[in-house]
Amino acid sequence: MHSFAKREMDMNILVIGAAGMVGRKLVAALLAAGQVGGKAISALTLADVVAPAAPGGTLPHTLVAADLSQPGVAEGLIAARPDLIFHLAAIVSGEAEADFEKGYRINLDGTRLLLEAIRHESQNAPYRPRLVFTSSIAVFGEPLPSVISDSHEHTPLTSYGTQKAICELLLADYSRRGFVDGVGIRLPTIAVRPGLPNKAASGFFSGIIREPLAGQEALLPVDESVRHWFASPRSAVGFLLHAAALDTGLLGAQRNLSMPGLAATVGEEIAALGRVAGPKAVGLIRRVPDPVIAGIVAGWPQAFEAKRARALGFVGETSFDEIIRIHIEDELAVVSK
Amino acid sequence: MHSFAKREMDMNILVIGAAGMVGRKLVAALLAAGQVGGKAISALTLADVVAPAAPGGTLPHTLVAADLSQPGVAEGLIAARPDLIFHLAAIVSGEAEADFEKGYRINLDGTRLLLEAIRHESQNAPYRPRLVFTSSIAVFGEPLPSVISDSHEHTPLTSYGTQKAICELLLADYSRRGFVDGVGIRLPTIAVRPGLPNKAASGFFSGIIREPLAGQEALLPVDESVRHWFASPRSAVGFLLHAAALDTGLLGAQRNLSMPGLAATVGEEIAALGRVAGPKAVGLIRRVPDPVIAGIVAGWPQAFEAKRARALGFVGETSFDEIIRIHIEDELAVVSK
Repeated sequence: MHSFAKREMDMNILVIGAAGMVGRKLVAALLAAGQVGGKAISALTLADVVAPAAPGGTLPHTLVAADLSQPGVAEGLIAARPDLIFHLAAIVSGEAEADFEKGYRINLDGTRLLLEAIRHESQNAPYRPRLVFTSSIAVFGEPLPSVISDSHEHTPLTSYGTQKAICELLLADYSRRGFVDGVGIRLPTIAVRPGLPNKAASGFFSGIIREPLAGQEALLPVDESVRHWFASPRSAVGFLLHAAALDTGLLGAQRNLSMPGLAATVGEEIAALGRVAGPKAVGLIRRVPDPVIAGIVAGWPQAFEAKRARALGFVGETSFDEIIRIHIEDELAVVSK
Repeated sequence: MHSFAKREMDMNILVIGAAGMVGRKLVAALLAAGQVGGKAISALTLADVVAPAAPGGTLPHTLVAADLSQPGVAEGLIAARPDLIFHLAAIVSGEAEADFEKGYRINLDGTRLLLEAIRHESQNAPYRPRLVFTSSIAVFGEPLPSVISDSHEHTPLTSYGTQKAICELLLADYSRRGFVDGVGIRLPTIAVRPGLPNKAASGFFSGIIREPLAGQEALLPVDESVRHWFASPRSAVGFLLHAAALDTGLLGAQRNLSMPGLAATVGEEIAALGRVAGPKAVGLIRRVPDPVIAGIVAGWPQAFEAKRARALGFVGETSFDEIIRIHIEDELAVVSK
């Protein structure tokens, strides 16, 4: 009796993609909270293609370095019957475009193998874990309205967006059939991304804030009128935790949600930087127009209604000043300790 | 030189799902036309899980009885490098719902194996066939507006609809990457379906016309106010042939199209039957309300704008009288010969 009661109240959590930027922040937040939706975390399994760092504290944990798309890996992760699964693992957009087979293998087959492992496990004995899946606004492509509604079609313009859109469909169907209790969340572009500049076409959105705050020059390849859709890393973690505890009875058959975010132009980003960090920081932004990047970014979503997600209690930022302050609090304050 | 010139002007066609109702009519139409888009048909391969009937005439043909989802089958079909491929093969909605694994194997994996076989063939030597894929209005699910626009999201409420929606995404991505020249067409509900009554929830839409025209009683399980979206089998074949010769440069990245159709209520169907076949035929319809069927049908699409398809020259029927007359011409006239 005791162990049964404990089992009902405790939560065994699996994080796939735990070594990534959002994954690491999610694990830290789970450890800090110690619970999800009022249930104490009893065990944590962290998986990624590279070994995730061990979480601090005394919580029983397992670290797994494995590729979800390889035979047996998903079954191995699901054998422990985690109550809650975060699936964040993916090949990023640029790599999925450069390596067609790898993108489909990791982003589509990996997710399908995970869903199949859960379905097979549910056929042995009742099992229906909560699965929180990170999708992307890359499922949307031209033609796009200036504000995208919750019922807009998916016409992805990249293989990455295609793979995410397919996984959303699978998540909804496996949930409808009762094999899993899925929630897919379409993340806005995350800003300010910590770390070094990368070659992603979206990199400058973070770079023009992050580099000047560190006293370094940042290149701006597009016009200040370019408008895009943002949330902070802190909000991304908040979305994941909210999805983990959400009453999925409210979702009906529509298991995938565009997350709330902040629509801001590059000019508004720069104005916010000026307010938060002063004109010297703004002066470190150097305009070097890049028609290739400008062309890519021109096809990207600018804003979403995100009515359903807001009504379900998901909360993002309301100003770019707030996004910059979160970066300072969560990244720079730690560094200067 | 001669064989090269011949190759450019001729067309080698593969029909997958050639033994089905639409497949058989398509093959008959291809043979009657002898050409597609001005190019003479030089060879025809007819494939299905059961051996398709041999086409009449003197055209070189190959009959293949094989399951597309089995290893090597797609490669075998693509080895002859067909210029034009019609992919109509699918497990129907009811069976895909009853047998989860079979539905995903045939409807998703079969199509993906076909796309992969084409991609691999294109890596040996330049190859980019036209692929016409039959999707379905089952990709749409609740909540639905009374008239569905060309940019409405896919929220399928069946595994069949999920599989079709996924194949649409794959078709678009493989086309965007240049591996195939795909056109996906979402067929309306086909009426009047020839043959015996079946157990499909949609069966009555055809049955209340077909059975009375044959002097037999037909059951009507829903209210006369139920509205749905129709095209004749002749239009379905017309859509396929039009898609085969379409200038796909006009499609951009959006390779999938909701076909035009006719929105009609059951009451309008019955009124048309009265006009075409008289009150005796109408008197053979027996109202036997079935709450289960009524419930299923209540979630189905009622009408589409289909603006893009109409602008691209796809043409459906404009009255149910026309749909009934086509059934009489194409099915009953043959029987009475």
